[in-house]
Amino acid sequence: MGRIAQQRPAATPASAGQVARRGAILRAAAELGAEAEFDRVQMADLATRAGVALGTLYRYFPTKTEVFATLFQEQIATFVADRWQPPEGDGAVERVGRNLAALNATLLRSPRLCSAMLRATAAAYMSQPPPEQLWLESESALTQAILDTLGIEQPGPDDHSAALLLIYSWWGVLTSSLSRRMSPERAEHELCRAASLILADHIH
Amino acid sequence: MGRIAQQRPAATPASAGQVARRGAILRAAAELGAEAEFDRVQMADLATRAGVALGTLYRYFPTKTEVFATLFQEQIATFVADRWQPPEGDGAVERVGRNLAALNATLLRSPRLCSAMLRATAAAYMSQPPPEQLWLESESALTQAILDTLGIEQPGPDDHSAALLLIYSWWGVLTSSLSRRMSPERAEHELCRAASLILADHIH
Repeated sequence: MGRIAQQRPAATPASAGQVARRGAILRAAAELGAEAEFDRVQMADLATRAGVALGTLYRYFPTKTEVFATLFQEQIATFVADRWQPPEGDGAVERVGRNLAALNATLLRSPRLCSAMLRATAAAYMSQPPPEQLWLESESALTQAILDTLGIEQPGPDDHSAALLLIYSWWGVLTSSLSRRMSPERAEHELCRAASLILADHIH
Repeated sequence: MGRIAQQRPAATPASAGQVARRGAILRAAAELGAEAEFDRVQMADLATRAGVALGTLYRYFPTKTEVFATLFQEQIATFVADRWQPPEGDGAVERVGRNLAALNATLLRSPRLCSAMLRATAAAYMSQPPPEQLWLESESALTQAILDTLGIEQPGPDDHSAALLLIYSWWGVLTSSLSRRMSPERAEHELCRAASLILADHIH
């Protein structure tokens, strides 16, 4: 599929039917990724579970990696939209840390799926050339949520860079939590600490 | 090999012959990982290149993941021993950032091998239970080098935690550099910035 993937980038859904098919594919991926190890998930099974033709699946997502990397983005965006909390008495920086810890707890409810999404995202992030539309640091939901929580409406390069460093720390803590090297309590402590160290100069 | 891997943990080399065989395996992995994508490297080819029997290879490293994760540790340890610079006029924190940037430049000389080692390390780090002897945060060469450069002789939990957060940032910058999302100049800037933010309170 390498050649097809190069010639035809992943389709951006436009019509209601396209949005529905893309949603069905991502929901099927969330189910299959929770049931079986990433290496054992097959594109054919994914198409069957989603109720779409295999050719349709490949038109939306040229590789399994892109399916699971996109699902990771979507799950983060959904968390940010539905559950990310604005600052209250605890201050903006502490709230960023607590929100990141809550995001990790949500993702870790299915460790197998979380591992699949992390592996796919890392592979997509390392690939050359990187897939379009994946993990655009300046536009990702997580970066935006961090900057919003800090009250930064017109971020400069230093603000984006700080948010990016914090996201790297978050990624490391999530990976460590997945192998149970890090307890949920320590993960929250580390994330609040990372936020306070990295974001200290970025409250507007 | 899963069952064998569980029953028999990777052998720790003791005799001179064992050290030589382990070294030959890791050198062969460095060559093969630079020549072919990680997915195409086979344990049988690795044994042939190293001049050891396949059973010997499996006795030292039960999986390909452990070979390349160990190689990553070794390459970092070699850099730390041979090329990590102590602080001079630029100050300890800045020197940590510059050393991390130099480490990345060294690892990125072979992007394919670097990608293989990153993938293997991430997979080893996420696996349950995590392999013994891999990436022991408190004992890794990189953590020790960071703490030494800061002049911290008896690190407390907060010192270890700061070093760990900086290593997460370093990992993220290395991954971004691999896909050429981040230029070498920006990588060095981000690493010096990460060091100054995260280590600010940790100079003894």
